[in-house]
Amino acid sequence: MQWKDKLIGSLERRTILCIGLDTDLEKFPPHLREGILPQFERNRELIDATAGMAAAYKLNQAFYEVQGIDGVTAMERTISYINREYPDVLVILDSKKGDIGNTSRAYARAAFEKLGAGSITVNAYMGKDAVIPFSEHKEKLVFVLCRTSNPAAGEVQNTPSPEEPLFLRMARMISGWNEHGNLGLVIGATYPEELRMVRDLVGFEMPVLVPGVGAQGGDLNKVLQYGTDPCGGGLLINVSRGIMFSFLKSDLDYITSASKAVGEYTSSINRIMKDLRRW
Amino acid sequence: MQWKDKLIGSLERRTILCIGLDTDLEKFPPHLREGILPQFERNRELIDATAGMAAAYKLNQAFYEVQGIDGVTAMERTISYINREYPDVLVILDSKKGDIGNTSRAYARAAFEKLGAGSITVNAYMGKDAVIPFSEHKEKLVFVLCRTSNPAAGEVQNTPSPEEPLFLRMARMISGWNEHGNLGLVIGATYPEELRMVRDLVGFEMPVLVPGVGAQGGDLNKVLQYGTDPCGGGLLINVSRGIMFSFLKSDLDYITSASKAVGEYTSSINRIMKDLRRW
Repeated sequence: MQWKDKLIGSLERRTILCIGLDTDLEKFPPHLREGILPQFERNRELIDATAGMAAAYKLNQAFYEVQGIDGVTAMERTISYINREYPDVLVILDSKKGDIGNTSRAYARAAFEKLGAGSITVNAYMGKDAVIPFSEHKEKLVFVLCRTSNPAAGEVQNTPSPEEPLFLRMARMISGWNEHGNLGLVIGATYPEELRMVRDLVGFEMPVLVPGVGAQGGDLNKVLQYGTDPCGGGLLINVSRGIMFSFLKSDLDYITSASKAVGEYTSSINRIMKDLRRW
Repeated sequence: MQWKDKLIGSLERRTILCIGLDTDLEKFPPHLREGILPQFERNRELIDATAGMAAAYKLNQAFYEVQGIDGVTAMERTISYINREYPDVLVILDSKKGDIGNTSRAYARAAFEKLGAGSITVNAYMGKDAVIPFSEHKEKLVFVLCRTSNPAAGEVQNTPSPEEPLFLRMARMISGWNEHGNLGLVIGATYPEELRMVRDLVGFEMPVLVPGVGAQGGDLNKVLQYGTDPCGGGLLINVSRGIMFSFLKSDLDYITSASKAVGEYTSSINRIMKDLRRW
């Protein structure tokens, strides 16, 4: 099942929620860190509880790498598990890769062939030839960083050029590189006006992955208004800490709290989408 | 031993050569791909043959990741091996990471604490807060992408802004972020004029890692002229394929050919440095 069919299927299930598996083991209490591959176990529990409400899962590679071989094994197992048990849900490897051609080719093979991810995040500071080796895997979706959600992003990404700030120029360039129709953009929820400007510039051809809702405090209402196409598609709203680690600010256990958070984000999205008359 | 002492020691040994361990297993003939961890074995042989002439080794993470768990294990073993056997040689993890704060923190711990690298390459498209979690490891050296060596890099990195192209603006910003004195720059050998412009702008405070000599065809003469400080320091010349895979274009065996290539690059660098009266 290819990414396009998965995203269409998600829209039919009325979900655009991407659940972030930023499985930072050290944030879990001791009894949830036991066992052979605790990162995989925590992911599996969360996935089983939420897959019906998820359009995608996004694995943040950093939190697996920091656990060494065990972490990489847990990342591999998690992706296989989703692919096998929930084949209609997209798996995004959030690695923000990007290098010269032969190196990007190796990263693409690592992500798509070795790990089995359906999608990846890519950093295009190195230009088109850092991106194309990923998008040449035509059945995979490649999200390229455009305007990221972090506080200091603007210093680089809003660099003014004679025509437009860098993130808009980047969006225009990425659109020009999209020969296989499988490029998307990463635009943080913390900058909804920038999302609007990008949509005005390049339309709805490229899906947008939106981090920064939840812990980072992005504005869901504006993001959905500016980011979704008339059918409510073209957007994935990612929430990571706000789901997986919601139990740390709650009396509920890990999975009950995460399921509740997923339910709440889903309701919020549905309510806004109805108000916007897109669903 | 910290990175500064290692680089000073290398200069005393009259080497600024960084040997790239882009250990792309599929490029080796079958008999060199056998064994339990062939990537580690090929690295170990190359390291033992060349460590006397190397200022640094640079491991390109892509070629390890693409081999899955075995590759990650080989990467770990290689770094431990260099740290143990050749503690005066710097190890650079070439991963071009960069993400929001908590994620960059995890990547930094993965590279410096879990793997034991002494240095890393970082992509600053996401801005200062993608870089600082790395440089907060004050005893480690962080090379930030400035002007990369690949053909399409200019489309992004030469974006004109009212004052200067993006790569110069990036160099200026990185210089401003350098509160711990442990930031460096990546500038490709394929663009020596840009290297000159960066040195004119930010001086010699930051060491520069220069890929693109060898397979990519950069101009060694100009790079050394523009990039080194009056004592011949402040620069690492990286050669990857031109050393490790030189045997593919030769009648010599793997290690003989690699050693010969290292000797030739060393002689070329020495000759130019003498002409420039820097050594």
